[in-house]
Amino acid sequence: MEITIGQRILDANDQITLRNKQLLREHGIFTINIMGSPGAGKTALLEKLIDKLKPEIKMAVIEGDLFTDKDAQRIESQKIPVVQINTKGACHLDGQMIEWALDRLPLNNIELLIIENIGNLVCPAEFDLGEDMRISLLSVTEGEDKVAKYPTMFTGVGAIVLNKVDLLPYTNFKLDDFYKDIKFLDADAKVFEISCSQGSGVDALADWLTHKVKEIKEVK
Amino acid sequence: MEITIGQRILDANDQITLRNKQLLREHGIFTINIMGSPGAGKTALLEKLIDKLKPEIKMAVIEGDLFTDKDAQRIESQKIPVVQINTKGACHLDGQMIEWALDRLPLNNIELLIIENIGNLVCPAEFDLGEDMRISLLSVTEGEDKVAKYPTMFTGVGAIVLNKVDLLPYTNFKLDDFYKDIKFLDADAKVFEISCSQGSGVDALADWLTHKVKEIKEVK
Repeated sequence: MEITIGQRILDANDQITLRNKQLLREHGIFTINIMGSPGAGKTALLEKLIDKLKPEIKMAVIEGDLFTDKDAQRIESQKIPVVQINTKGACHLDGQMIEWALDRLPLNNIELLIIENIGNLVCPAEFDLGEDMRISLLSVTEGEDKVAKYPTMFTGVGAIVLNKVDLLPYTNFKLDDFYKDIKFLDADAKVFEISCSQGSGVDALADWLTHKVKEIKEVK
Repeated sequence: MEITIGQRILDANDQITLRNKQLLREHGIFTINIMGSPGAGKTALLEKLIDKLKPEIKMAVIEGDLFTDKDAQRIESQKIPVVQINTKGACHLDGQMIEWALDRLPLNNIELLIIENIGNLVCPAEFDLGEDMRISLLSVTEGEDKVAKYPTMFTGVGAIVLNKVDLLPYTNFKLDDFYKDIKFLDADAKVFEISCSQGSGVDALADWLTHKVKEIKEVK
């Protein structure tokens, strides 16, 4: 009699992601997967974070977009390594795309790698890219109900960034409901209120990330 | 020798969608598929349109959401027929879901059916729901670069609604670039500048839709 031992068969994406993860770990690179709606401010947040962190931490960025290299151009002007992935219409990044991008980055000279996923509050949550941490970005103008309506995007994340808080006076965003829904879904997520356009709140997130990067280097 | 005649094999979704389309046509129902990012203002636009159109046109709504019936509740309070579809995490509506919803609507008493798709600027564009027209919604706070970055969402649509124009002074949205990119992609799309929160611009869209509904009734 043959005994089948129950185990999860890794699919193609999982296998590649596992390889990517090992590669990143070997190089001591702390990797973040930033997710959020189109226009939530992912690239704007990256620009601000790079400004703050660049003097202390060796950074690189992988930019995910359906088409165009608009975002990569914005990052490139900050003089850090950036690779643009164009998914040609696909709604999320996957392991194979990340593998392709890692092959084009100077891994020996990176401490913090930030992957900006496709602007989409649904599909990216389903795909592990080998990251150490996910950060979900929501902007005030999207409405506080998005946490309850798109729960997979706000569960199992290291941090939730609420962006565009400078627009709070011009919207009917209910901050109390936002925090209530977050606590219900993901009580451990750290929340940062930020305005990329005004620059407020970015320091706190930058300090927290610096601490995370140092932590992983000590472990290594 | 066997001769294979080239023809597109309809997949399961296409077959169901074709049936739905025939059903809608038989009842003389003009059907719109509204698409846009989470928080672009799809439900807010629906609320405003229902206010304007309800006295003249028999309307119904199909609400698509991953989870929750928050949007259906908002529409229900306006006293028109509404069916909530919860996709349980799936990123778009499909033919089978619409078939299920149509089965729950008073088709003999509807002239205009509006389907609010999942908040997602990528996946819904790939799925025909049997609609007569698509309307894409973009909000000023998402940035004008979204047209070029998510082109499938702004191609082959009847109208593009630019929402939250009241927030133009507080953002760096470039209106000229927006129109330039639209013209490049979809010169035939009618563009409406709207502020759902202020109520501006809704009349023009409502009048245009009334005309479309009357047109299809005359054809019938």
